[in-house]
Amino acid sequence: MDLSRIKFAPLQDKVITAQEAALFFEDGMVVGSSGFTKAGDSKVVLPAFAERAKQEPIKITLMTGASLGHDTDGKLAAAGALYKRMPFQVDRVLREKINAGEVLFIDQHLSESAELLHNKNLPSVDLAVIEAAYIDRDGNIVPTTSVGNSVTFAALAKQVIIEINTAVPEEVFGIHDIYQAENYPHRNVIPIVAPWNKIGRRSIPLDPSKVVGIVFTNIQDSPADIAETDPKTESIAKHILHFFENEVQLGHLSDRLLPLQAGIGKVANAVLSGFKHSNFYDLTMFSEVLQDSTFDLIDSGILSFASASSITVSAECYDRVFNNLAKYRDKIVLRPQNISNTPGLIRRLGIIAINTAIEFDIYGNVNSTHISGTKIMNGIGGSGDFARNAYLSIFVTQASSKGNTISHVLPMVSHVDHTEHDVDILVTDIGLADLRGLAPRERAQKIIDNCVHPDFRQELQSYFDRAKERGGHTPHLLEEAFSWHLRLAEKGTMKK
Amino acid sequence: MDLSRIKFAPLQDKVITAQEAALFFEDGMVVGSSGFTKAGDSKVVLPAFAERAKQEPIKITLMTGASLGHDTDGKLAAAGALYKRMPFQVDRVLREKINAGEVLFIDQHLSESAELLHNKNLPSVDLAVIEAAYIDRDGNIVPTTSVGNSVTFAALAKQVIIEINTAVPEEVFGIHDIYQAENYPHRNVIPIVAPWNKIGRRSIPLDPSKVVGIVFTNIQDSPADIAETDPKTESIAKHILHFFENEVQLGHLSDRLLPLQAGIGKVANAVLSGFKHSNFYDLTMFSEVLQDSTFDLIDSGILSFASASSITVSAECYDRVFNNLAKYRDKIVLRPQNISNTPGLIRRLGIIAINTAIEFDIYGNVNSTHISGTKIMNGIGGSGDFARNAYLSIFVTQASSKGNTISHVLPMVSHVDHTEHDVDILVTDIGLADLRGLAPRERAQKIIDNCVHPDFRQELQSYFDRAKERGGHTPHLLEEAFSWHLRLAEKGTMKK
Repeated sequence: MDLSRIKFAPLQDKVITAQEAALFFEDGMVVGSSGFTKAGDSKVVLPAFAERAKQEPIKITLMTGASLGHDTDGKLAAAGALYKRMPFQVDRVLREKINAGEVLFIDQHLSESAELLHNKNLPSVDLAVIEAAYIDRDGNIVPTTSVGNSVTFAALAKQVIIEINTAVPEEVFGIHDIYQAENYPHRNVIPIVAPWNKIGRRSIPLDPSKVVGIVFTNIQDSPADIAETDPKTESIAKHILHFFENEVQLGHLSDRLLPLQAGIGKVANAVLSGFKHSNFYDLTMFSEVLQDSTFDLIDSGILSFASASSITVSAECYDRVFNNLAKYRDKIVLRPQNISNTPGLIRRLGIIAINTAIEFDIYGNVNSTHISGTKIMNGIGGSGDFARNAYLSIFVTQASSKGNTISHVLPMVSHVDHTEHDVDILVTDIGLADLRGLAPRERAQKIIDNCVHPDFRQELQSYFDRAKERGGHTPHLLEEAFSWHLRLAEKGTMKK
Repeated sequence: MDLSRIKFAPLQDKVITAQEAALFFEDGMVVGSSGFTKAGDSKVVLPAFAERAKQEPIKITLMTGASLGHDTDGKLAAAGALYKRMPFQVDRVLREKINAGEVLFIDQHLSESAELLHNKNLPSVDLAVIEAAYIDRDGNIVPTTSVGNSVTFAALAKQVIIEINTAVPEEVFGIHDIYQAENYPHRNVIPIVAPWNKIGRRSIPLDPSKVVGIVFTNIQDSPADIAETDPKTESIAKHILHFFENEVQLGHLSDRLLPLQAGIGKVANAVLSGFKHSNFYDLTMFSEVLQDSTFDLIDSGILSFASASSITVSAECYDRVFNNLAKYRDKIVLRPQNISNTPGLIRRLGIIAINTAIEFDIYGNVNSTHISGTKIMNGIGGSGDFARNAYLSIFVTQASSKGNTISHVLPMVSHVDHTEHDVDILVTDIGLADLRGLAPRERAQKIIDNCVHPDFRQELQSYFDRAKERGGHTPHLLEEAFSWHLRLAEKGTMKK
């Protein structure tokens, strides 16, 4: 315990243990917790609550920024501690409980949760749990590796528990830009016109009288899983880089491109890595998450600024960043997710958005969330915030998987997260389909020609040809539209 | 011909006939025309081109603001003059050609077409046809009853034809707010924080050297079809008004509500009419179209300001408005559709959006465009711009139609325009489902309980119950999901 991290003296006597903090949770409460893509989450209070919930019948509605690390969602789910969860998750155990109907889950655009709370379109927050680097002299919270929805939770919760994480250096102060738009009908302009604009405070405002406990921790974030790259991923990245180079040649974009948003994972990392050996320069990001590849690109002098809501990196990169904050300080900023993901800024800045699909169909509708239309994987996250409003919306997936038994390019997606109106470019390891300016029948032919795995091409072409015979703007054979999914369920393969 | 309407003298010798203007059209051209929901469209040049195209094989890509009046789309389609059409249409003949695959159609969010052009994500515009009240002394265009995409077409087209419509009084000057956001990467804030803010010029900037012809007309817009109200429509409107009253009682909204957007049609008219006998006051609109009901509400003192991109009213209302412009001048504004519909403003102002669905499903996904997943009706229009970014997103449809043989509440929609993430409230004549804060399984039960016609309720409940047995976050039976649509196609009824 390092009391110097509580610089607002009246709060120094609020220090309690995680187990004591867990006693503030009551059955039926709405709890808002920090944490965005495993960064800056509650390290001990939520786990202590999960322990308590093993013994007692007590369930909460849990809202976060996005996913939590350290298997906390799994522990909570296994303990039966969750009644409802939003807006995002990536946990294996929790996912099973959601798909079994045992935990209710709301899959929300990440920009919207805070809006819904401020607008009273969701029940009010009873208790907030927020990780902090320290509490400043005015009683405000200096957050750690993410901002997420913490500004909203701190503002609206009736009670607040703070986890001071001494694993995060105090020098993190200054990398956050804490801004909250006014409530309706008094909302003003959000004055960001470039990724590097900082428009707010550097700490999260807090009414100290709401603080019911402060818990000390010294635990790093769960490291990001940096999957080894593979030929399919490399191929997807190559298609995208080639596309960008071509757009520059056509005069549509400059070598600076426009601010990039990249979803989490190996494709994003591969694309960003690809920039290292290119003519692009002075790139910027306006995204949700800063990953290893972000810092690699900063180090190589190609990326000049990156804005997001969290830093989610490998253990190696974590040390590199937090031992060299002086080096990165003026090149990154972390924002509340209702700013990093807000539709107006995404359109104003002209974002190039790259997100991952589970499957897409011949017309370019994208399923980001549900296996065979029913079982959720993670959630839509920020992909909808970005895809709808981006300058360019790119979705990627492998053409096929599991030994070519599953095609990710289908007659009709089994669940729609992004409609064809919001999808400009589709990419698989087979190729890239540039759908700009194309009508549905043109889109279909281009997707079949460019993106589908050859093992499935003939059957997909046959579907489209037979659908066209029946006519329509978006020709479909409803009786056959899900036949590939049904075959997979019956025979374990989509192949005939 | 009234040459005083060409106040920029060097253009006075550009007057030509519609037939002469039609000769500027060349095969393969991209033509941008004024016109938004039948208002301010080309009255004679496009029809003259349609006549010409009857004789010659000549096809164009036609972009507009939204729909055209006077059956012009039908004439063009019947003449084989259209290769590709975007972003919206409502014409019976054109619709048939699109569904037959003879005309390619791109169904676009109405805020996006201008963006795509400025960003070079669509082919450049060769020729623009723009209706004007007059040309001012500097050679700028004073538009008529809509703005639509005319600012963009005038800026980007290589050649411009102007239709001066003397049926529109010159006093229309001042009701337009002409603003164009900067191109990337230099885009600035759009400084609107309330519906009545006027931020731009009052005429459309134009390089006079691009004007190849000026044609005079004296033809009013096609009048809006004001359908008689009916019990189902009244019932839907009543549910919505009751919902608003309840939100005020709960303290979520004030009696001023928040700026309203209402799609075209009788439901919007019925809701707005319902406000006349209510406690609501000082209402505002931030919408696409000003309809009869808008002016009725202004007259009754309840609506204090209305912003949109066009005025589309009955013949009676047209005369009332344009003979009394002094009365309405400070209460309305017409904007470019990439301003009226821009995502950032919709979220900033906190719009309450009311749009019409063709069908919706038990999870709240909405189909606005396609009959049985294949044949397009009109297009998504601005519903996606508004629904995604609104403070509240409301969709309405009748529960059933054609003597209860068709249910508009279904196991799964056959085409998705709005995903469940973007839909807060669903309303049919049967009732209203408030879906805020509900997970998919909760949404389904509420929709079944509140919205479906009793004739279909048991079967819909059975579908949901059996799907739940199979598990999943969003339980579905893919082999049965479209069975209602398929039954309709086979037997002419969705009933078993």
